[in-house]
Amino acid sequence: MENSYDSIGSKSKDVSLKDLSIRLAEFAQVRGWDEYHSPRNLLLALVGEVGELSEIFQWKGEVGKGLPNWSADEKEHLEDELSDVLLYLVRLADVCGLDLGQAALTKIIKNARKYPVVVMNQKSKSTYN
Amino acid sequence: MENSYDSIGSKSKDVSLKDLSIRLAEFAQVRGWDEYHSPRNLLLALVGEVGELSEIFQWKGEVGKGLPNWSADEKEHLEDELSDVLLYLVRLADVCGLDLGQAALTKIIKNARKYPVVVMNQKSKSTYN
Amino acid sequence: MENSYDSIGSKSKDVSLKDLSIRLAEFAQVRGWDEYHSPRNLLLALVGEVGELSEIFQWKGEVGKGLPNWSADEKEHLEDELSDVLLYLVRLADVCGLDLGQAALTKIIKNARKYPVVVMNQKSKSTYN
Amino acid sequence: MENSYDSIGSKSKDVSLKDLSIRLAEFAQVRGWDEYHSPRNLLLALVGEVGELSEIFQWKGEVGKGLPNWSADEKEHLEDELSDVLLYLVRLADVCGLDLGQAALTKIIKNARKYPVVVMNQKSKSTYN
Repeated sequence: MENSYDSIGSKSKDVSLKDLSIRLAEFAQVRGWDEYHSPRNLLLALVGEVGELSEIFQWKGEVGKGLPNWSADEKEHLEDELSDVLLYLVRLADVCGLDLGQAALTKIIKNARKYPVVVMNQKSKSTYN
Repeated sequence: MENSYDSIGSKSKDVSLKDLSIRLAEFAQVRGWDEYHSPRNLLLALVGEVGELSEIFQWKGEVGKGLPNWSADEKEHLEDELSDVLLYLVRLADVCGLDLGQAALTKIIKNARKYPVVVMNQKSKSTYN
Repeated sequence: MENSYDSIGSKSKDVSLKDLSIRLAEFAQVRGWDEYHSPRNLLLALVGEVGELSEIFQWKGEVGKGLPNWSADEKEHLEDELSDVLLYLVRLADVCGLDLGQAALTKIIKNARKYPVVVMNQKSKSTYN
Repeated sequence: MENSYDSIGSKSKDVSLKDLSIRLAEFAQVRGWDEYHSPRNLLLALVGEVGELSEIFQWKGEVGKGLPNWSADEKEHLEDELSDVLLYLVRLADVCGLDLGQAALTKIIKNARKYPVVVMNQKSKSTYN
């Protein structure tokens, strides 16, 4: 089983959404899970994982960037929950027949049009030069 | 602005999480949004987008794979909301200092160990041969 | 401890939001939890419970009204999770200084104005006479 | 329409979950919405409203109890969204055939057993005497 993942480490700097999508489709298929992976089932599973992600942050008050003072275990737990959200999101897009990576790039362009960069005199100097 | 996205189409088949993360960091930085992008702010923004994603599905009853009978507009709306969830998730991981792509691959491995493929005599033949 | 709940059974047909709010405030106070019950902490706890609620429904496909074929244990689990969402919602409103019961009644009135009842000739007879 | 709500103000200090449940059942029935109010449809609608609730808090950083410096409009918006979550939760419990008020009281008892009050010598004096 694990042999098929031998090359993960070396590719990690460039994990693509398409790659994840293919892995997850295969993962479900060989386990006979396809019948359970309807859009609304996956959506509710995604909501469940967002809940687990929120639980990590719920009693912490404001949390600083980079997670100062979090233990390695807490960070790993967070990585697991962020990943669970991602994996269900990728799978949901896939069973809907949508290309999530392309959609994300398109959305960034829409957002760029919606929120144009306001360049002020002084600021532009410090930001762009 | 849009010139910088000229090459998106040709790269779309291989959109990486790292690429999205870099684009979003730049996007926030040039707009002066960094101060708002704390982990819990982004998490709540993510929950907000999951809500918008759910609204698309809320009155539909069960939805079939591939979204039969959905209009092109509905599909584009869904792509937008899936993307919004993804973009906040990627940004959240980034401000937490975590590598989401690597984390996702690691989680797939954990899941593969947790849910080993059960190979039965007959099934294995039809599935693997 | 439990003596204070002796009268619950007899009052159950008329559980008020105000009553729940008072019980929860006391519950937190005697446990020294007040400092953790900030609005955003409670909101994220609420999201966590919505996640647990969703998990109950996630692999079930469409579920009929009245939960046909659900076991008593499943129904109790669902009651627990619905309650957890409610309790955090009541607590969140309380620490925000808002009257949730009054707000809910006001919202029903707003909704009634927003979605007026369309009375058709025949339908009105069967519905109102 | 509004005549039927004339008595709301005077009853507001004691809004019960049963009362809300009955109002919402009638509200849906006279509008012909019953067919849409399946458990999973209502659950996704609830998630949608939790998203709108989260959006109110998303860019605010930590928020103090009592919502210091929030405008009246912001507070009313928050009341609306808290109510929307409550109303879908009440409706969801109702179509599942469950008594949410009773369930909430039962859950408080379970929580009291799970998290017993730790009474320390000095603290008990100040808290209970």
